[in-house]
Amino acid sequence: MTKKAPTIKDVARKSGTSTATVSYVFSEKDRYIRPELRERVLQAAEELGYVKNAVASSLKGNPRGILAVIIPQFSNNFFTDICAEIESVAQKAGFVVIICNTDDSVEQEEKIVKRLVSQKIDGCIICPALSTSKNIKTLDIHNIPYVVLERDLEGETPDFDFVGHDNFQSGYLATKTLLDAGHRNIAFLGWTTPIANLRDRLSGYKAALDEAGIAVNDDWILLDNLSEDAGKRMAARLPVDKVTAMVLAHHYYMAKGTLLGLQKRALRYPEDLSIVLIGTPEWRDLVHPSLTCIKRPEKEMGRAAASVLLKKVKKPLYREKRHVFPVEFMTGLSVRDMPG
Amino acid sequence: MTKKAPTIKDVARKSGTSTATVSYVFSEKDRYIRPELRERVLQAAEELGYVKNAVASSLKGNPRGILAVIIPQFSNNFFTDICAEIESVAQKAGFVVIICNTDDSVEQEEKIVKRLVSQKIDGCIICPALSTSKNIKTLDIHNIPYVVLERDLEGETPDFDFVGHDNFQSGYLATKTLLDAGHRNIAFLGWTTPIANLRDRLSGYKAALDEAGIAVNDDWILLDNLSEDAGKRMAARLPVDKVTAMVLAHHYYMAKGTLLGLQKRALRYPEDLSIVLIGTPEWRDLVHPSLTCIKRPEKEMGRAAASVLLKKVKKPLYREKRHVFPVEFMTGLSVRDMPG
Repeated sequence: MTKKAPTIKDVARKSGTSTATVSYVFSEKDRYIRPELRERVLQAAEELGYVKNAVASSLKGNPRGILAVIIPQFSNNFFTDICAEIESVAQKAGFVVIICNTDDSVEQEEKIVKRLVSQKIDGCIICPALSTSKNIKTLDIHNIPYVVLERDLEGETPDFDFVGHDNFQSGYLATKTLLDAGHRNIAFLGWTTPIANLRDRLSGYKAALDEAGIAVNDDWILLDNLSEDAGKRMAARLPVDKVTAMVLAHHYYMAKGTLLGLQKRALRYPEDLSIVLIGTPEWRDLVHPSLTCIKRPEKEMGRAAASVLLKKVKKPLYREKRHVFPVEFMTGLSVRDMPG
Repeated sequence: MTKKAPTIKDVARKSGTSTATVSYVFSEKDRYIRPELRERVLQAAEELGYVKNAVASSLKGNPRGILAVIIPQFSNNFFTDICAEIESVAQKAGFVVIICNTDDSVEQEEKIVKRLVSQKIDGCIICPALSTSKNIKTLDIHNIPYVVLERDLEGETPDFDFVGHDNFQSGYLATKTLLDAGHRNIAFLGWTTPIANLRDRLSGYKAALDEAGIAVNDDWILLDNLSEDAGKRMAARLPVDKVTAMVLAHHYYMAKGTLLGLQKRALRYPEDLSIVLIGTPEWRDLVHPSLTCIKRPEKEMGRAAASVLLKKVKKPLYREKRHVFPVEFMTGLSVRDMPG
């Protein structure tokens, strides 16, 4: 019952020409074919449902028109917004984008990278699981052009193209917003991770406090895992008799958990506690009051990552400068001015 | 500067054996190789960063370990939740999942399907753009095992495996919830689409009204596009002097827009208007009051789609029954009992 897929021979027969001519029509090379013959071949191919075998074709070094994006979380708007932008740029250049999710597991990432390498994709944008460079090396060895997204790699790897945003600035700006409103006792909620991004946000928080002459209180820095439950746990632990404000420096599931945890303790924002959130979840203006946020440059990042990759696909030795985009303040109603 | 990727010859040389032995170690076939030799080969491959060339390998008909999921919207939790479940099942079976987004464009879908066919993926789960079967036929012709997800195809295509959920029931249950609370003037907000799902939800709405002996008022059925702005427009048009309740039968962006539009008119729910939402956006319990929802079976759908596809990959002629999963009522605070 399994039918045989149409081959180049079937197309040649149906359009009354040679397989060589069909092959020319489907190759990307500039070879003159009479317009009406080209049309006839394309028509026959369409009717038969012929699809060129990229597998065989790529053995001859032809591009396949496929770029991969490897991200650590599929359920995080931050990454899907970046992906949407990458797709839009790549599509205009004639590429199809495939997305793979590592769930921040280095083992899963290894499997994905090896499969993609063996598929001979044209290029790859990768946000390394747990910020490790192991699988990046596989891309390097196999000469797959790639751009590292969002998570910087330290030391080990050869010099690479990077597109990210300023995590230090986001921590700094969130904290400064609260300081400017007169808060002095400010908590920082994040997650435990080997990834530099959170550490950079925390450094920004500390730098802002330091500038204001305020000592860092380690008891007010709460770290847990990335889940909604973790957010609830941190809200439960929050010393609200001491702090008047907090920076939510983390994933949206956690942020949601934190807000639900505050509700459970019957704590209102901004009355009982002021909040600045790093990131802009879909619900930031649906919750009441709306959240004051630090907006990350998802669009700019996606656009830059795709453009750099496309240049590298064309010219493997192409090197770009590092792109680290600034964040932006986004006004909301979750910060209250302290009397004083 | 471009290095040469390690080949099977390099692995053979490094492990002091023949290329045939290396080939046996990396083939899925059951061929006895001494454990210590196998170990040596794997070790050498690891050190060199050798990755088997699936492109060449697949020309011989070997599986590639890649399943694709083609969805129409990347920024819709409904689909990403299904994808997460597909990934989890596929990973256990040793497959890597790649996700492609058609943006509900048949042209984009055609490009994606042709690229994937030419890549010789092992199988595919597809939610057809605009419910058209054109590109499904390409999968058929090329004997790529596939499962149709969520959007049923009518008539044209040969008999296919389908995993979906009961859209009629979701429209019916949402409306019945409002009727049971004593509402009689109930609006229905959806979007303009050729897709049967929305039509089925609307049929469920009409059937519930009909059962209660209430005539359908076409002025209370509002349809627009899928954007947040469309939601705002419909909220602005809603005849709140006449209706006391509404079924939000649509995409989360629209639902968000509708809620923001109500806020703009200073309409409160459930006081001024009761709401039942079809679907469970991340923010359903963050908004205040929380939304009464109809929960769709994302996990069950993802699990079933992946299992059916895996069976078909193993046995191309395998046929499963259709899976249409029921929806569930999810309690919230957005429906008020009418005095009566």
